[in-house]
Amino acid sequence: MEFVTRLADHVGARPDKFYKATLFRGDALLLGVNCLEPGQTQAPHDHAGQDKFYYVVEGEGRFQVGADEATAGPGMVVWAPAGVVHGVVNQGEGRLTLLVGIAPAP
Amino acid sequence: MEFVTRLADHVGARPDKFYKATLFRGDALLLGVNCLEPGQTQAPHDHAGQDKFYYVVEGEGRFQVGADEATAGPGMVVWAPAGVVHGVVNQGEGRLTLLVGIAPAP
Repeated sequence: MEFVTRLADHVGARPDKFYKATLFRGDALLLGVNCLEPGQTQAPHDHAGQDKFYYVVEGEGRFQVGADEATAGPGMVVWAPAGVVHGVVNQGEGRLTLLVGIAPAP
Repeated sequence: MEFVTRLADHVGARPDKFYKATLFRGDALLLGVNCLEPGQTQAPHDHAGQDKFYYVVEGEGRFQVGADEATAGPGMVVWAPAGVVHGVVNQGEGRLTLLVGIAPAP
């Protein structure tokens, strides 16, 4: 079983929308990578019944969770509880790479 | 609502056993920090029905998942699916800091 992976091996870019890759998936948890190039956005959305987190690996994002907004850089953790609208914009000059978990898995 | 936090603000050490802190908790997901000082161990254990991951923030750990073992350092992700025995030992010279998620939350 392959149970260890290097996050940096899963980064990527798409010109039209932000990039997503799945690292691991069980019934209870989906773990993946999101990469936003400068100017790219993950539009605000919510997941009924699913808790979600972002961990900023590189770059800087402007996050929205509910009515609140904050800028987060490397080493910051962002929490979007079930049912709360959330999204992120890369307003920086470099790639924004995020470790992302959604529970239960979609 | 406080939805953003800096992981480094939650690290710590205990002399007798590894250090744990909770970052965020919902019904579906518990997100926390584990810190193992050199020589400290998280003994192999399993969680029936709970998927778990570790993301190595600093240091290096020797991870066991099921019958497999691997050493993982910064930027590596370790996956322990529901019901599979897992544990970690800090065989390095510095603190091992891990972002950890368990779904559903214990």
